[in-house]
Amino acid sequence: MAEQGGGKDNKDAGGKKDGKVTEITPQSEDFSRWYLDVVRRAELADYTDVKGCMAIRPYGYAIWELIQQGLDRRFKATGHVNAYFPLFIPASLLMKEKEHVEGFAPQVAWVTRGGDEELAEPLIVRPTSEAIIGTMYAKWIKSWRDLPVLINQWANVVRWEKVTRPFLRTTEFLWQEGHTAHETEAEAQEETLKILALYKEFAETELAMPVVDGQKSESEKFAGASKTYSIEALMGDGRALQAGTSHNLGQNFAKAFEIQFQGREKEVQHVWTTSWGVSTRLIGGLIMTHGDDSGLILPPRIAPYQVVIIPIPRGNWQETVLPKARELQAELLEAGVRVKLDDRDAYTPGWKFAEWELRGVPLRIEIGPKDIEKSAVMIARRDTREKSSVAIDGIGAAVTALLDDIQKGLYDRALKYREEHTQRVSTYDEFKKLMEGRPGFLIAGWCGSAECENAIKADTQATVRNIPFGAERVALREPQGDPEPGRGVAGTCIKCGRESSVEAWFAKSY
Amino acid sequence: MAEQGGGKDNKDAGGKKDGKVTEITPQSEDFSRWYLDVVRRAELADYTDVKGCMAIRPYGYAIWELIQQGLDRRFKATGHVNAYFPLFIPASLLMKEKEHVEGFAPQVAWVTRGGDEELAEPLIVRPTSEAIIGTMYAKWIKSWRDLPVLINQWANVVRWEKVTRPFLRTTEFLWQEGHTAHETEAEAQEETLKILALYKEFAETELAMPVVDGQKSESEKFAGASKTYSIEALMGDGRALQAGTSHNLGQNFAKAFEIQFQGREKEVQHVWTTSWGVSTRLIGGLIMTHGDDSGLILPPRIAPYQVVIIPIPRGNWQETVLPKARELQAELLEAGVRVKLDDRDAYTPGWKFAEWELRGVPLRIEIGPKDIEKSAVMIARRDTREKSSVAIDGIGAAVTALLDDIQKGLYDRALKYREEHTQRVSTYDEFKKLMEGRPGFLIAGWCGSAECENAIKADTQATVRNIPFGAERVALREPQGDPEPGRGVAGTCIKCGRESSVEAWFAKSY
Repeated sequence: MAEQGGGKDNKDAGGKKDGKVTEITPQSEDFSRWYLDVVRRAELADYTDVKGCMAIRPYGYAIWELIQQGLDRRFKATGHVNAYFPLFIPASLLMKEKEHVEGFAPQVAWVTRGGDEELAEPLIVRPTSEAIIGTMYAKWIKSWRDLPVLINQWANVVRWEKVTRPFLRTTEFLWQEGHTAHETEAEAQEETLKILALYKEFAETELAMPVVDGQKSESEKFAGASKTYSIEALMGDGRALQAGTSHNLGQNFAKAFEIQFQGREKEVQHVWTTSWGVSTRLIGGLIMTHGDDSGLILPPRIAPYQVVIIPIPRGNWQETVLPKARELQAELLEAGVRVKLDDRDAYTPGWKFAEWELRGVPLRIEIGPKDIEKSAVMIARRDTREKSSVAIDGIGAAVTALLDDIQKGLYDRALKYREEHTQRVSTYDEFKKLMEGRPGFLIAGWCGSAECENAIKADTQATVRNIPFGAERVALREPQGDPEPGRGVAGTCIKCGRESSVEAWFAKSY
Repeated sequence: MAEQGGGKDNKDAGGKKDGKVTEITPQSEDFSRWYLDVVRRAELADYTDVKGCMAIRPYGYAIWELIQQGLDRRFKATGHVNAYFPLFIPASLLMKEKEHVEGFAPQVAWVTRGGDEELAEPLIVRPTSEAIIGTMYAKWIKSWRDLPVLINQWANVVRWEKVTRPFLRTTEFLWQEGHTAHETEAEAQEETLKILALYKEFAETELAMPVVDGQKSESEKFAGASKTYSIEALMGDGRALQAGTSHNLGQNFAKAFEIQFQGREKEVQHVWTTSWGVSTRLIGGLIMTHGDDSGLILPPRIAPYQVVIIPIPRGNWQETVLPKARELQAELLEAGVRVKLDDRDAYTPGWKFAEWELRGVPLRIEIGPKDIEKSAVMIARRDTREKSSVAIDGIGAAVTALLDDIQKGLYDRALKYREEHTQRVSTYDEFKKLMEGRPGFLIAGWCGSAECENAIKADTQATVRNIPFGAERVALREPQGDPEPGRGVAGTCIKCGRESSVEAWFAKSY
């Protein structure tokens, strides 16, 4: 079978010369162009005839499926279940929570006609599902015995975006949205932080993408939330990417949608809710965390193919090399490795090397007549480009060990990059000067006012990414024993100079 | 944790008396009412504030996840991959295939506004994705080397329906839609029939739902297809349910969307495409194939919980019975059984028995002090209601064997029911008379004309479900060695009396 929806026309094939990819813009020349080239050439996604909407191609979707599996397993292990709610929301429902409607109304798609009738009340296409889920929870929850409700939904959502970029910001995107309801405020807060920790562990373990977890500022909060927390990753161009958010919604939505229950002492009260989500944006994060000028580099745990086997066509290779390659494939599959055998004879090995490098496959195995004589194969790593001859005997264990090493290596490299691009600054002049370049994160005191936040954004384009807690804060300054993230750190606001009890991470962001 | 989104208010709890469900209408009284009662009370789905759209509750969605897994595994094993295409389709694209637009335009939802701007060209919400996928295939397919393209999509689609019923016909529903492109007509036909066979095997193996596979009549064809095939199941009220369709689209869409490739001899030509799908409708089929007056009966392979353990609260049961129940649960999990321990103390065992019967759990295990004394448990089957005492030692194997037996028993029972409700008729008077009751399938000769088909429908509400091939035909009349389904069978049209070479299965349908 052909590579799915391959579409390698002559122009594309001509883009490689002696195994060199000549059609991807170097990162140093234009990072944004590089990103789009990689998305297109690695066949992750493509533009469509629908403004701002992409088609996720099989290779990109296979990454999304691995992300889904990794998250879904974690959600279920923490007691969550999946469900599905309508795509459409009556406009009046969105209006019920005041801040929510102000945040989302300007960016929704409106369905005004169904079949041949004009709708009496227009429907919006869900930009997020708090409103429709809120009305169902109001029906389903009656007693404290029905709590907690821990539901997640895998779905598409639509936000009418003016400027779009594949995976990072698209009119329609795929995501998961968790919506939980609890008996007490403390339980809702515990859930919010539990999910944030789950996201961080997932991003770091599976995507090899280090993230800073912390609380969002008031102005960057989800529309309608009491508190929003996020994980933030640093991309190869020094910009931050918000990779996931977890919201404590307090009783805001419970009051707007009348989600009430009878408590243990028979008193009727509102539930406490949370919501949280990650999206196909994570694929953009993967690309920009690990990729290089040859294309994509995928961490093994999230790579659709962890190994590609390329037979070297010498002599009657189809009788000699190919059967050995098939044995190897079977043995690796047996060892639990996702492996692709590229036995197409319309392409040269050199072309295939470049093609699978571009697609970021962690390990390439070359097998030719000489290797077979030595009962060995040549293995090339995508991350370090190291090549070594490895004995066929025990290849499963050897490959598994290499994949583990690559996974760890990519994480370490990304963490080192972030550490090298995170600086504490103490004056606003220094802050502004650094933000002109590609500084990554700048850590600075902040008085907490929207005024200073807005002024900093206007001057430098940088925003408060979040106010970290946990390891990132500890590493830079000793914690003060205060449970609130970032609070209790003595200092002054980088902008106004007033006393600040908060240390924030600033960056330009996607 | 509470049962997810439980919502058992006092009224519901009051619906059971001494373990008897009093709130489900008997099938014999009103089958349609029975169906809606089961959907609601088993918490499979619920009505929403959006006309015709349902919320699929966690218990219903868990069944859908098992359906997805079973199908996805089969699609991948036959070389298919998943991808994702936009929800929206520019109206002009839908217009490109003449029959397609005539079939679907009257039942689409229209997006006319995005954010605060009126759209220059309205977008439709996909009712099916041939149009948008066609435009992408035209970009991606250049050469015979790119073929076949074997892509599937898991997605939501919207069809503006006037009359809706949960799972069976809803404005929005979830489905998978396969879209493949091939080099030759023969390959496309092979794919179409391969998928039909896959659907049949899946329905019969996993859902224990016997189906008749065959070809649709011209008037029941998919809008734009050359040939449509279906699997048809018989529901408990004698109506047929179309449970899946597979379409050979010929070159119709390839020509409309200019999907061309350069062939092996360099000649430019159009591809041959297929599409095929099954939806959340299968859950409706499950309910109506197996359910009884006590509620749902789920085949073990598709049951979210295959076993529910109910501890009998005697004396200090939380110190004596509960730990044993937990051990049992662990042992069954270890044996690969999906098992739920219902240790809620707010409900009596009798209430729980009725509740889990209503939810169709194949096996119930009761464990109390007396059972523990005997190192045994009481096991009750949902399908036959047989109860027996089973030794705890070796319980994993015993439960697995019972589950296999139930799976087979449900299939056999459904097949027997279908056979008892399938009759060959030879006169139109007999046909009309039988169709007044609940006959199931009627097999009759048909001349193939739309005229007779329409007249039969007008007289009896019955339609040609399909023209079977394979086992269903062989069982009733010896095949004539003709490869076309149903052809070559000598006979006369049940309506007009002209010579017919086709034997069709007629039924009233959902």
